[in-house]
Amino acid sequence: MDFTERVNSNIESLDRASMDEAKSRQDSLTKPLGSLGKLEDISIQIAGIKKDARPSIDKKVIIVMAGDHGISEAGVSAFPKEVTPQMVLNFANGGAGINVLSRHVGAEVRIVDIGVDADIESEVVINKKIKMGTDNFINGPAMTRDEAISALNVGIDIVTDEVLSGADLIATGDMGIGNTTASTAILRVLSGLDINEITGRGTGIDEEGLVRKQELILEAIQMNDPNSGDAIDVLSKLGGLEIAGLAGVTLGAAMNRVPVIIDGFISAAAALVAAKIAPRSVEYMIASHISVEPGHGFIWRELGLDPILDLNMRLGEGTGAALTMSIVEAACKVLSEMATFAEASVSDKSEKEERVK
Amino acid sequence: MDFTERVNSNIESLDRASMDEAKSRQDSLTKPLGSLGKLEDISIQIAGIKKDARPSIDKKVIIVMAGDHGISEAGVSAFPKEVTPQMVLNFANGGAGINVLSRHVGAEVRIVDIGVDADIESEVVINKKIKMGTDNFINGPAMTRDEAISALNVGIDIVTDEVLSGADLIATGDMGIGNTTASTAILRVLSGLDINEITGRGTGIDEEGLVRKQELILEAIQMNDPNSGDAIDVLSKLGGLEIAGLAGVTLGAAMNRVPVIIDGFISAAAALVAAKIAPRSVEYMIASHISVEPGHGFIWRELGLDPILDLNMRLGEGTGAALTMSIVEAACKVLSEMATFAEASVSDKSEKEERVK
Repeated sequence: MDFTERVNSNIESLDRASMDEAKSRQDSLTKPLGSLGKLEDISIQIAGIKKDARPSIDKKVIIVMAGDHGISEAGVSAFPKEVTPQMVLNFANGGAGINVLSRHVGAEVRIVDIGVDADIESEVVINKKIKMGTDNFINGPAMTRDEAISALNVGIDIVTDEVLSGADLIATGDMGIGNTTASTAILRVLSGLDINEITGRGTGIDEEGLVRKQELILEAIQMNDPNSGDAIDVLSKLGGLEIAGLAGVTLGAAMNRVPVIIDGFISAAAALVAAKIAPRSVEYMIASHISVEPGHGFIWRELGLDPILDLNMRLGEGTGAALTMSIVEAACKVLSEMATFAEASVSDKSEKEERVK
Repeated sequence: MDFTERVNSNIESLDRASMDEAKSRQDSLTKPLGSLGKLEDISIQIAGIKKDARPSIDKKVIIVMAGDHGISEAGVSAFPKEVTPQMVLNFANGGAGINVLSRHVGAEVRIVDIGVDADIESEVVINKKIKMGTDNFINGPAMTRDEAISALNVGIDIVTDEVLSGADLIATGDMGIGNTTASTAILRVLSGLDINEITGRGTGIDEEGLVRKQELILEAIQMNDPNSGDAIDVLSKLGGLEIAGLAGVTLGAAMNRVPVIIDGFISAAAALVAAKIAPRSVEYMIASHISVEPGHGFIWRELGLDPILDLNMRLGEGTGAALTMSIVEAACKVLSEMATFAEASVSDKSEKEERVK
């Protein structure tokens, strides 16, 4: 059985009975029908994922994958490549945005070196390095198909271990200078959308840099000629290692029946790859936020997901997903903890129905 | 000194020096410039409010005001009027949406009976009843000008007491069957917007009910002829007591230099009244979410505020504001806890500037 078959055979649809029961309970709670909007939708989705009509969230884990990109030597980012390992150490030391926000929401963070182009000396960082960054996709494939599948499996294995240790809500996060370039290239091939519509400024390049980024992406697509019907081929040829790892995390969450919150543009590109490999995995995804990076919204549209937060963020690292974890947890608490009309002796709308008419 | 003069003389502008210092610090933190979007803006606003370049949030209090509306006897709501006191008791017993969400974010809730048309027997509910609900504004003013000013003062006094007891982040919330009707009437007069654009279905009335609600609002405005240049006159004539109380809470927060998160449509109508009484109070406001109720977005536009959450909620009670409290707290933690480029030895963008060109 090949990778794609194995993954698909291990992802079930959501449990309808639990979802129906959760919906009935939502409708019996002391509030106008549907008035908690997306909180209600999320709670029902999670009931279906966990086969539990009153699910709770007990352990939240954010998996941040870091990797380097050969294309970064072309100056597609506002920051130099050394920033990838520097930021990984910043994560390890607890000083980055993701550290602050994960502490705030009570989530644990796993930092995975899946392809940083430097030796990372830290006991906190999980070493799953496939290689020292991808190759520059201007000259040929970013990685081999085998390397891409290894990276996907790293993600699946990590999330499986976390679920075995009790994690019941997973979030994705990324670090990798140059990775909006790879993500934009993936989106271009998998969606066919116009490069001008989907390319953004990443960490903050100028107009000249933006044009150059678009040219490089089109050039790389032309020279590598990825098969848009084969997401693993697209992933191999355009990169990156952390995107492959995060696609694996996303698939692994679905394989383990755990909800996965998708962070920013890079995590969303990984989720798009996951959705192409195993379409049912989308049922397990929750869209965290809509970022300033224009491609982000296009991916949510492709996936049919509606993001929860709109905070003009564009940091990645899992920062948007971390904030969303708190909202998802709140959604489950509403479903479990609110009183019903009967319990609270509150007159239900139905009792009024005839009076109004 | 009359009410309006007293309030205005007690609201200062935000502290520019603290805001500039907070902005400089944000720009030195290990992230691309501005990449935490609204989190950065909020942290800078709160620095200006608290005169502290690294503010923290230590005690969060949600003030929920409950009152009845004479107009509810005309059947403008999907729920009967008895639901107001029933829900107040549900709040007191901890079973409502606001209880679940405030526990989740670690906020305390104060429940204030400022005009419920029933005797509330609960030690938890703060009794500040001005009268047993407003009068039906179809027959004359909802309340007298003196009653409106008393209700405004109730809000100011409650928030002042809370700040003296350590509260440093306030949120508003409402309960009152019929209060989207009063809020829509206020918005219509203070903004001049088309009644068809701003009227919504509240807790869930049908098409026929919606048309009737619009007719009643226009009728009430015509018969009471409120002076659109005098927000207290508008408030007195259209109601309600809880809207007046929440306008007072909003003003009181500004008078005490504490940020105030404005909840749903009713709280926003109260904030609009506050802004008309004391325009500088807007600097202290944070817009929580954009609800399904169409007038909500119009009020944010009138106030020049940009809501943080978009969750299709329309429950009121402070539920949207409670979730927003967690985001505001996160914003302050980012400002205080993240490492700077220098502290984390991460290469700043500026070091690259010449390399890219």
